[in-house]
Amino acid sequence: MHIVGTGLLGTSLGLALTRGGCVVTLEDTSPTAVRLAADMGAGTAADPHPDTGLVVVAAPPDVAADVIVAQLRALPDATVTDVASVKGVVLDRVRALTVGTELDRYIGSHPMAGRERSGAVSARVDLFEARPWVVCSDEATPAGRLDQVVAVAEAVGASVLHLEPEFHDSSVARVSHVPQVVSSLMAAQLTDMPVEGIALAGQGLRDVIRIAASDPGLWTQILAGNAAEVRAVLTALRDDLDRVVDALALETGSYAVLASAIAAGNEGHRRIPGKHGQAPMVYAIVTVVVGDEPGGLARLFTDVHALGVNVEDVRIDHATGHRLGSLDIMVLPDREQDLVVGLQQRGWRLPEHPEPDEAQATSTTVEDGSAG
Amino acid sequence: MHIVGTGLLGTSLGLALTRGGCVVTLEDTSPTAVRLAADMGAGTAADPHPDTGLVVVAAPPDVAADVIVAQLRALPDATVTDVASVKGVVLDRVRALTVGTELDRYIGSHPMAGRERSGAVSARVDLFEARPWVVCSDEATPAGRLDQVVAVAEAVGASVLHLEPEFHDSSVARVSHVPQVVSSLMAAQLTDMPVEGIALAGQGLRDVIRIAASDPGLWTQILAGNAAEVRAVLTALRDDLDRVVDALALETGSYAVLASAIAAGNEGHRRIPGKHGQAPMVYAIVTVVVGDEPGGLARLFTDVHALGVNVEDVRIDHATGHRLGSLDIMVLPDREQDLVVGLQQRGWRLPEHPEPDEAQATSTTVEDGSAG
Repeated sequence: MHIVGTGLLGTSLGLALTRGGCVVTLEDTSPTAVRLAADMGAGTAADPHPDTGLVVVAAPPDVAADVIVAQLRALPDATVTDVASVKGVVLDRVRALTVGTELDRYIGSHPMAGRERSGAVSARVDLFEARPWVVCSDEATPAGRLDQVVAVAEAVGASVLHLEPEFHDSSVARVSHVPQVVSSLMAAQLTDMPVEGIALAGQGLRDVIRIAASDPGLWTQILAGNAAEVRAVLTALRDDLDRVVDALALETGSYAVLASAIAAGNEGHRRIPGKHGQAPMVYAIVTVVVGDEPGGLARLFTDVHALGVNVEDVRIDHATGHRLGSLDIMVLPDREQDLVVGLQQRGWRLPEHPEPDEAQATSTTVEDGSAG
Repeated sequence: MHIVGTGLLGTSLGLALTRGGCVVTLEDTSPTAVRLAADMGAGTAADPHPDTGLVVVAAPPDVAADVIVAQLRALPDATVTDVASVKGVVLDRVRALTVGTELDRYIGSHPMAGRERSGAVSARVDLFEARPWVVCSDEATPAGRLDQVVAVAEAVGASVLHLEPEFHDSSVARVSHVPQVVSSLMAAQLTDMPVEGIALAGQGLRDVIRIAASDPGLWTQILAGNAAEVRAVLTALRDDLDRVVDALALETGSYAVLASAIAAGNEGHRRIPGKHGQAPMVYAIVTVVVGDEPGGLARLFTDVHALGVNVEDVRIDHATGHRLGSLDIMVLPDREQDLVVGLQQRGWRLPEHPEPDEAQATSTTVEDGSAG
């Protein structure tokens, strides 16, 4: 296995494959980056032309195609794959630059894994574990070479999805690239706000703009690389936005347009699968008041575990100025009642499930009961 | 204290004030809603004209002004406040409908609290605890009446912010109303996607569209009630969006525009305060691999507590198909090292902090060390 490009993805891949017993060689235009990745245990620095049957190009999207073609030439028997987050433009350029049967040895792929941080220093041995890994093959792809690429994805614990490049690119435009643009544009509207107004921000805004912290350099490459698809979705969104803007006009306003815009969002929201890629699961939410002091979470989760209830998800609410923390614990619906009763017996305060006498309690009783 | 409207906010307010020893009477156009709120302990059902010095109108935004004026008339000495999420249109209509000094007895307010669920049944006694509660007064507001409204907010644990109605409305347009529209419009773009494409969705998309699950009826009222401000922000956002769409055009594209759109999002993102409304705090993030089995979270937080480290925030990553859970624990930067070393000593796997021999480990060693 030869990895070209020792950034976040290349180094993480090297770490995972090396751990699995695979011999990995590393290459990067930056000697420092190769040295760092090798020191982290991602493989050994190689001369440019190692003796290998499989090359993974983990170079930035805008140079991926040229690096792929160089590798196809340098190693005339090797299969070459890449991990770029756009597949159509890379394939088009590889097709344009290759001759003869060279193209048969290229199989594009895209592991759906990443972080807000970049570089070898941010690499994680488990970055690909149980993530979708898209492999783009067609009927002309030699089965043996396809198996090589699938084997790498499976060796690092990813789940392989076979998709056409065009389908991949239009899908990631909707689930990844346009959400990034929307989040960034929303966050940009906050730039000039007075601090007194910013102080009103709650958890909803925080969630919408979390990914607005992403790297401009990388995202410029990604957006430019998938420009046609991103533009098509953004244009559709812009048309919907225009309808909302018109519906808010004083004279020509329409409540029906406003309501249907929010309702359409409900519908899209329902399409997103739940944890672990299962069908959307409606969990029961049990809200528990947890003080801000150390040890509260430890005691709570110890009690939840003692009750034999599995935690499917947790969420902490951080509205501005919220000093008394409350935690939403998501559990399977048929475990909700056990959890509620069990936690109350152990002295936790569950605001949505007041005990019979708590709602009518005097202030003295409340001070006793509010510990949590 | 008299509360008109026993939905989520009115009932929650009644629960909190009753718990604090205050005598609360309740009124609603729906006898069933009043009965439910009273049975939950939010107060007692009242004849329309109770003998009280303070009325809180917690009616829907589109009827708030009319209800306020009716209360001002019914109780000629009482101070009347409301909790509607828009303040300018309510004040304008109250001003238009009142005569003489009636207006002096109205003080608008807005507790920044809510839930994705509505109705008395979703009420929480701690809904307002440590949340911002905006009070809109001006120099003409009688000090004694202002004190009454502030006292209610403080009695339920909220933090009072004195803002002008116009400033309030333009601020919530940016931090709440436009984020809702943006999230809904984004989610709507997913409606027609094939399931194979939806399967590529990751945590970023989930965060951006979480609030797209909100109620269309309530949000139509809120958006219509703050139409001018929301429209102004959406128009600015639309102009920015147009620039991005143009920058993605094949011939006239501009990488500089794409990069500066993402960079502007970085800048806006940095303006959002951290936990508890403090200045933005950069926490150290320690990522820990936690199996999906019951008890993992309990053991982890027990160990964190034993190490004497306070947890500032937690985040679980739920990319599609992610079977092996990892948890980000956010702590004060000067506690990071203690936590990392302590957790490793207790056998936890920290992917970003491989132990010296782990990165080079054979597969056997890794199986031993991966327990977590």
